[in-house]
Parts: sequence; structure tokens; C-alpha cells
Amino acid sequence: MTYRAPVRDQMFVLRDVLNIAQYADLPGFADASVELVEQVLTEGAKFCEEVLAPLNGIGDKQGCVWSPDHTVKTPDGFKAAYRAMVDGGWPAIGAEPEFGGQGLPAVVTLAYSEMSSAANMAFAMYPGLTHGCYSAILAGGSDEQKALYLPKLATGQWGGTMNLTEPHCGTDLGLLRTKAVPQADGSYRITGQKIWISGGEHDMAENIVHLVLARIEGAPAGVKGISLFIVPKHIPDAQGHPGARNSANCVGLEEKMGIHGNATCVMSYEDATGWLIGEENNGLKIMFVMMNEARLGVGLQGLAQGEAAYQGAVAFAKDRLQGRSLTGPKNADGPADPIIVHPDVRRMLMESKCILEGGRAFMLWTGMHGDLATKSPDADVRQKSHDYMGLMTPVLKGFFTDKGFKIASDSLQVHGGSGFTESYAASQYMRDVRITLIYEGTNGVQALDLVGRKLAASGGRAVMSFFAEIDAFIADHDEDETLKVFVEGLQTAKAQLQEATMWLMSNGLQNPDNAGAASSDYLHLFGLTGTAYMWALIAKAAAAKIAEGSSDPFYADKLITGLFFVERVLPDTGSHLAKLKTGSATMMALAADRF
Amino acid sequence: MTYRAPVRDQMFVLRDVLNIAQYADLPGFADASVELVEQVLTEGAKFCEEVLAPLNGIGDKQGCVWSPDHTVKTPDGFKAAYRAMVDGGWPAIGAEPEFGGQGLPAVVTLAYSEMSSAANMAFAMYPGLTHGCYSAILAGGSDEQKALYLPKLATGQWGGTMNLTEPHCGTDLGLLRTKAVPQADGSYRITGQKIWISGGEHDMAENIVHLVLARIEGAPAGVKGISLFIVPKHIPDAQGHPGARNSANCVGLEEKMGIHGNATCVMSYEDATGWLIGEENNGLKIMFVMMNEARLGVGLQGLAQGEAAYQGAVAFAKDRLQGRSLTGPKNADGPADPIIVHPDVRRMLMESKCILEGGRAFMLWTGMHGDLATKSPDADVRQKSHDYMGLMTPVLKGFFTDKGFKIASDSLQVHGGSGFTESYAASQYMRDVRITLIYEGTNGVQALDLVGRKLAASGGRAVMSFFAEIDAFIADHDEDETLKVFVEGLQTAKAQLQEATMWLMSNGLQNPDNAGAASSDYLHLFGLTGTAYMWALIAKAAAAKIAEGSSDPFYADKLITGLFFVERVLPDTGSHLAKLKTGSATMMALAADRF
Repeated sequence: MTYRAPVRDQMFVLRDVLNIAQYADLPGFADASVELVEQVLTEGAKFCEEVLAPLNGIGDKQGCVWSPDHTVKTPDGFKAAYRAMVDGGWPAIGAEPEFGGQGLPAVVTLAYSEMSSAANMAFAMYPGLTHGCYSAILAGGSDEQKALYLPKLATGQWGGTMNLTEPHCGTDLGLLRTKAVPQADGSYRITGQKIWISGGEHDMAENIVHLVLARIEGAPAGVKGISLFIVPKHIPDAQGHPGARNSANCVGLEEKMGIHGNATCVMSYEDATGWLIGEENNGLKIMFVMMNEARLGVGLQGLAQGEAAYQGAVAFAKDRLQGRSLTGPKNADGPADPIIVHPDVRRMLMESKCILEGGRAFMLWTGMHGDLATKSPDADVRQKSHDYMGLMTPVLKGFFTDKGFKIASDSLQVHGGSGFTESYAASQYMRDVRITLIYEGTNGVQALDLVGRKLAASGGRAVMSFFAEIDAFIADHDEDETLKVFVEGLQTAKAQLQEATMWLMSNGLQNPDNAGAASSDYLHLFGLTGTAYMWALIAKAAAAKIAEGSSDPFYADKLITGLFFVERVLPDTGSHLAKLKTGSATMMALAADRF
Repeated sequence: MTYRAPVRDQMFVLRDVLNIAQYADLPGFADASVELVEQVLTEGAKFCEEVLAPLNGIGDKQGCVWSPDHTVKTPDGFKAAYRAMVDGGWPAIGAEPEFGGQGLPAVVTLAYSEMSSAANMAFAMYPGLTHGCYSAILAGGSDEQKALYLPKLATGQWGGTMNLTEPHCGTDLGLLRTKAVPQADGSYRITGQKIWISGGEHDMAENIVHLVLARIEGAPAGVKGISLFIVPKHIPDAQGHPGARNSANCVGLEEKMGIHGNATCVMSYEDATGWLIGEENNGLKIMFVMMNEARLGVGLQGLAQGEAAYQGAVAFAKDRLQGRSLTGPKNADGPADPIIVHPDVRRMLMESKCILEGGRAFMLWTGMHGDLATKSPDADVRQKSHDYMGLMTPVLKGFFTDKGFKIASDSLQVHGGSGFTESYAASQYMRDVRITLIYEGTNGVQALDLVGRKLAASGGRAVMSFFAEIDAFIADHDEDETLKVFVEGLQTAKAQLQEATMWLMSNGLQNPDNAGAASSDYLHLFGLTGTAYMWALIAKAAAAKIAEGSSDPFYADKLITGLFFVERVLPDTGSHLAKLKTGSATMMALAADRF
């Protein structure tokens, strides 16, 4: 079974659902005609299918190997693939032209990233974190720092990492202890231990740029005393080449359930030389530039791994002969029917399919707003898109990693006993995707970010704007017979989401535990409603193609798959609403020692 | 973190909810006073906590090792623990006294099995399968076979296996090819390959008794031509001791996601000597004796692993300091609050807790009916209990393995990043429990068994009897203020289950795909309703204790935990009903090649 990149579906979303051609006058888009985008994604698909995907299983089985000299060997083939990736220019497609990038819209990078994260998530994390590092320096670095680091990071010639977690603090960064001592030359000496550093050490890039959160001597306690530093593995020399080895060492790797091909490092900094990014004590703010981008990327990983797992399940379900259809043999000449004839197998495949396709649209729709937020000439559009990015980031991260894991588990289930063995990729997909529910802020943290921060920001402007957009769509299409079921489903879900929002506004303020207790159900209700809106947009685009006379089954399938979403997935909104409205009293009633 | 066996809760269910003292006049129960049962379970708890649990992680890390001489080495400590288990008489507590057992009620064995499956599932599978082998020979073997094998299997001195699956057939046993050739001496020569044979070879017992499904030469094709054979690893000599080595060899082990401590064998039979059990071509019927017992046991494994995982999450949540409570510091002197103060962490713990405790009651309630089905002097009781066993087996297997996996995944989530590393047991619990959704019939097969066979059996007698029991409970308690919320929740769920049952009866007959398409949602709706009934029974027993003046927080906690179930878990019944009523049309609409 080989991974097939869903370029056709991505192009349908970009071209027919989002109509990216309408943005041809925006910077970045000007040089990115629909034809060019399709060409880029088609080439990217080839690279992911032919180079990255075949290494996925090898990465899982071999893992990364640490040596006492602090080096880390990546699995066979990773080094050559990394070189091919740099040579192909893949990390740079979305980077700024002034730093050696191609300057394509962020939404195109997002589409490419889905493919690379599906083909080989452990591998794709190396350039993924590097890009986060690039974005943080772009957002907060000095001109000198940008000139020195960004061109190397843009191409992937140098790798990048983010160093937040310490053994005693993950979510609660206020507790961090790594310290920074200012030096006469303007640099700092950084000392401390960081854990769970993805790509903290490996053998694929000539240098690695660590972004490290630390506390400058004498800084305030808590989150207000945290600064961000650049700590390169090799200190760049006067020509910008990797020079002296810094005291930034990988002292061990974590043994993990999955993503074995990615080196999860324990990093030790001992008087390592570092340079401050931005202002003192302002590190978290810059790190959050990186973090928000990373969170969207993690939501995408959830979907991507779900897609890869789903494809494996489909192949197995068509191939495996077992039992007969309940309505009579479908493969009468064979010893049994392929298991895809069984309704309960279909249930798992259809549920996966409708979430994956709706999720892909949701992700690209949001990515599109990411472009508009910075590139639109219209201040209102920029504001609305910026609001959407903030609002949707926790939703996409939490909802689609939960769903991606469910899809991976259901895909394993389709394999029966074979799925539990390591002879099929199903196990790896489920083990690999499991981390996406945790890193870059657990899904519980996402839910709290949504109800505690994003909803309330600017007086609830973002969510009200989203409701207004849905209302307008409903008003515009409520007499469209083809879209009837989609519009009705969306209307119900949106009314429930609005009711939940009202409930949160009155009860969350009164008792913050109510907001916390509601947060996860609210996030899922939001994710379902957003996906229902996407299916309405998809159905509209597909129906238009059919109305134009297209007999391509691609479009008819969209209407069926979307209908399945409305019938078989969307009804969960009702139970999420019912649950969250019960509040926090029972949830918080037991004393801690009674568990 | 060490596993603590929930003897207190088990005894509460047995004594106060099920009132096992009322059966003191039944065979088996006569010698099993409540005090004796408590003593047995307390001793069993010690064995599981002190001997089995410490080997769980070792088993995962070391796994079983196969050698080319067809031997399998179990992980360090397993052999000594097995010996201690045999010496302690644990496998024999429920076996018939005439074959060396203690003859305790089946419900007591079930309670013990929860503990052993929680402490070390991979280990507990060895005696688990052995007991299934015992039951099949008890049900179908000749007197001679019983006398020869049962005493050895009862104690665990010999191990037992079940051999169903072949590479090309798992669920669809009609396709199996292993052949049996009758010999002049009444024995058979068995030839074929079997896969996924748990405990097929190991170094802990002096002999292993394989039960092998095979087709006698000339037998009809399909399921009507399958016979069951005893194929011992060592052929017993005249004295019943292990004699000549049979040609039944383990030729390899599966690499699996979990249960590494259990040897999952590829077995090769080459003209191996076997003896028919029961009549020719009647093998599946006897195997199903074993299978039904095994299915209940697998549901129990799901819950047991959920319990162990939950305990690990509770310990972590009390210990890990991160962030502050939304309602103000709860550990003001410490650097942060324990994460159990956060509502979303509580949500996962409370959801797990209410399913585990309700599930424990559901499992023991069903086990109790297993005893009554064979031991009650009242023919009506025997029939009703027998009906319940048939009806509930797929529900318990499917529902509690799905839930057990969710609990294990949520428990991992409570650990944050630590849960994804192999430094905590959370990963192992999730990987181990994943098989329970698959083996002994996938959960899809359970759902189909429920809607296709169990519901319709004897004109729907079983389900009607269950509805009548619930109705009677509601009628008896609808004016009880303490139980109000439990009775109302139960009433709603039962009405929805009844509506779903009616829907199935009219639509499933009309188109069998409708039954298949509804089956999984129906099974979950059934599991939720049954658990709601259990919580009503538990709440009644707890309320009675409180009314009697008990101030033990155990009883007050039960009312809170049960309320949480009604508020936060039970609302899912509504979406299951809504989904299943949409039928199979959309689910089956896509052509197979369009996936």
C-alpha cells in the first residue's frame, strides 16, 4: 500500500470551493496562478509519494540512534531524502523571496504540508519545526539576525527547533528555570535542561538553530520574566558558515510510542552562547508566533495521518475477502466478498472520508484567511481574517487531531487482527498520530484557549463574524433544493453552537470552572459546525459542476459523502450541547483524594 | 505507580447491589458465603498487585522470544509467577470440584479475572485461554477426555489454546483449510497452519492442549464441515503424563502493537495426532462455548485495562504540578496546583470513573446471570438468565472494549507529553487494550451478532424481558426523590433503545443492510442504557446505606459519580438513535472503487 496524495481534492477546494483565482491581485498570489499551484502540488505529491512515503516504515522500525558523543543518527534513507528535499526547494516554497523563498501563498504551503505529513510525519517534522523557527526570527529578530539565519532556515540547509519544555514544566512555562547570563559582548550564556526537543540533534543539516526560552538573571518570576534566545549548534563565523561548536548538546533521546523517525531530544545547555531575540522578558510573545503556526500544523498532521491511515484501510477493505454481503454475494465467483461490502466496515470508511474531506476544506479555508490577514488591501478583510485565524487555530488543532486519531484507530479496526500486528502500517499511523493530541498544547489547553481567550477577544468579534457569515450563507441558499439538507444541518448546528456560546458567556463569567468544564464539548461542537459549513460550501461547488453538465462521479460522490456527514456525524452536536450545559458542579464535586 | 485492585467496589456490587447472599442455597454459592468471597478476592488482589503487576512493564519491554527449535521464552519472571499462580490455585477457583476445582460461582472468577487482567493482561491471557479450553472440553468432550485433560487444565498445570484463524480466514471460518485424516485407531492426523494463537507455545507449563478447528477429509464445504480436535503438544502417556512430542510447532511469533508478554504464535500442524471432540462437523458449536466465555472475558479485559490506566492517570494528576486552578490557587504554598484541579482533566477522570464503576456492576450482574442460568432451581429464572447471557455478551464485549480503549487513551492524555513516552505505563495500557476491540470477533462482528442473532432469538424474548425488568424498576422507584435523576435518565435511554429496536425490527427485515448499518450505534445505545440501569441500582444501594446513617464518603461518591454518568455520558444515546435511523442508503451509496 502506497500513499496517494489527494491533489485532485486539494485543487477542487482551492479552485472551486475557495476560488483562489479571485485573489490574483494580492502579493504572492499574483505569481501563483491556479495552474502554477496545481503544478507545484503535483510535483510535491511526487516527492512525498516517491521519496518520503517509502521511508515511513523504515523510520518507525529503526528509529533514531543516539551516541555518547552526542550525535544522533537518523534512520536509513532520511539523510538522502533530506538532501533531496532541500535541493527540490520544498521548505522554501512559502518563504519570503528576500530570504531565498518562493513567496507562494501560505495556503499552498499548507496543502503541500498535508502531503508530507501524511507520507512521513516523523520526517516532515524536521522541516516543520525549522519553518516555525524561521517564522519566529522573521517576527522578532533583528535585521542582522534575519540576514544571518533566515536564508539558511528557509531552504532547510540549517535545521531549527523550539525549546520550551523542562522536566518540571510543560504547559506552565512560568515555572521554567533555564537561565541566561548577559555577557559584555551582548551575547548571553545559557544554562539549563530542555526536554522533548523535536529534531534537537540529527545528521541531516550542517547546523541546527535552537530557539530557547530562558530567564535572564534577575528577571521577574513567572511568565513575565521569560526571554527568547537563538542558540546555534555551530556558531556562525564571519562568513555565516557553521563555526565553533556551541555547548548545546543532546544528552539522550526519549523512547516513544510513535514518530520513532524523529529525534526527540533531551538538550543540555551549559554556558552555551546565545543571542536575545526581540526585547528582554518578551520571549513568550515571539514564541507564540511560532506556536500558533505550529498548532495549525499539528491539526494538519492529525488530518494527514488520518488520510494515510484511511487509504490503508480502503486498500485492505477492497482486497480482503471475508464473509458475504448481507444482501447477497457481490463477488460470487470468489471464495468470499471483499469486506468493503459490509455496512459496518463502510460506516468506518465513510465517517473517515467525510471528516477528512470536510477537514481538508476547513484547513485550507483557514489557511486562505491566513493569507488574507496579511495580504488583503482591505483593512476590514484583514481584521476579519486575522480574527478567524485566532479563533480557528485551537478548533482545528483540537478537533482534527481528536478526529485524526479516531480515523487512525478505525482504520486499524478495518484491518481486524492484521491491524494489531506491525506487518501493516495501520499500527504506526495510530501510534504516530497520538502525539498530535498532546504537543504544542494538549487538546485540553486548546479548548481552554478557545473558551477563555479566543471567544472573548475583542468583545467576541470573531465568533460573531463567523455566525454572521453562516447566517448569510443560509439566507442566500435556503430555497436551494439541492442544498436543502446541508443548509438545514448547518442551521441546526449553528443554532446549537450559538446557544452554547450564550451559555458560556453567562455561566463562564460567573464561575470559570463552568468554562473549563464546557471547553472540550464546546470545541467539538465548534469543529462540527465549522465542518458542516465547509460541507455546505463543498456541496454548492459540486452541485454547480453537476448543473453545468459534468458527469464526473467526483462531484456526485461529494454530495453523498457530505450527506453522510450530516446524517451520521453532525448529530453529535446535540449531545455536546446537552453535556456542556450541565456545568461544572458534578465534575468538580469529588475531593481530589476520593479518586 | 502500582495497581490497586478494586476489591472494595467489587464487594459493594456483590454484597449490596446484587445481594449475592440471597443465592446461598444454590450449588456453588452454598459454600461461598459473602465473607469467603471477600477473603478470596482479598487474597487474589494481593497476588495480582504483588506478583503480576510488577511484571507488566517487563513483559512489554522484553516480549516473548522465539527460537528456531520452536521454543518460546517468556519474559523474565513470568515462569515463576505462573508457578505461583498454579500453586495458589487461582485458575481453579471456578472449576468443577470433580476436576480439582474449588467450584466457586462464576461471578467470583469474573471478579478475580478483572484484577489479573488489569495487573498484567498479557500474562492473564495464558490462564484465560486455558480456562476456555477447559470449558470447551467440559461442554463437548467424552468422559475419557474430561478425565484426562480437565484436572490438568483446571489448575493450569497444562496450558490450553484455541486455534481458529488461518492466514486467509479469520471472521469467515467457513473458508478454513486445515485438514483432518481419520486413522485406524480412532485418532486423526491434523495438517495446516493456524495464526494468532495466543499462548501457542511457551516455557511455563509442562504441556499445552491445542483445540484445533479442522475439516475432516470429505466433509462438506463451509461452516457445516468443521470439526474440533484436541491436539496436545505432548501426547499424554498411559499414566496421563506428557509423553511423545506431537508435530504441533510454533514456527514464529507476530510482532504486535501490544501484549508483548503474550506469545502470539504461528502454529504449524504436520500430520499431528489429534482426537475429535464431540461429533464430526459439529466443531463450531463447541468452539462457541469457548468463544462466548472468551467474549465476556474480552469485555472484562477492556474494563480492566481501563481501570489500570485510569489509576495511573489519577496518580499523575494528583502529583503533577502545573498551572493554577481557574478559581484560585489550591496549593498556594507550592509552585503550582496539581493538575487534578483543572476541569478538563477532571472531565476525563470522571468520565472514566463512571464508566468503570458502572461497567464493573454490569459485568458482575451479567456474570451473576451466568450462574443463575445453570444453577437456579427455577426454570423461568434459568431461561431468563440464559437469555440475558446471550443478549449481553456482544454488548459487554463491544461496548466496554470501545470504552476501555477510550479510557486508556484519555488516561494517556492526562499525562501530557509524558504519556507518549514509554517512561510511564500509559502507553502500554493503550497499546495492550487495543487488541480487545478486535479479537474473539471484532466489535463490528459483535454488533452484527447483537442485531442479527441475539435480538431476534426466540421472538425477541431476551430484549423484551430486559425492557420489562427496567420498566418494573422505574415503576417501583418513580416517586423516590433521591433516585429521580437516575430513574429519569434510565427512562429516556430505555425509550430510545426501544425506539431503535422497533426501527430495527421493521427496517432490518426489509433490508438487511439497514441492520448492519445500525448495528454499531445500536450496540452503544444498548451499552449506555444497560449502564444507566446499573447506575440506578448502584445509586439505590448507596442511598440505602446513607439512609441507614452511613457517613462513609464511598456512598456519597457513588451518587456523584452516577450523576456525572447521567449528565455527561448518557446524552450520547440521542445521537446514536438519530444516526441509526438514517438507515443504510447513504452508507452504501458509493461504488467500492470510488473510495
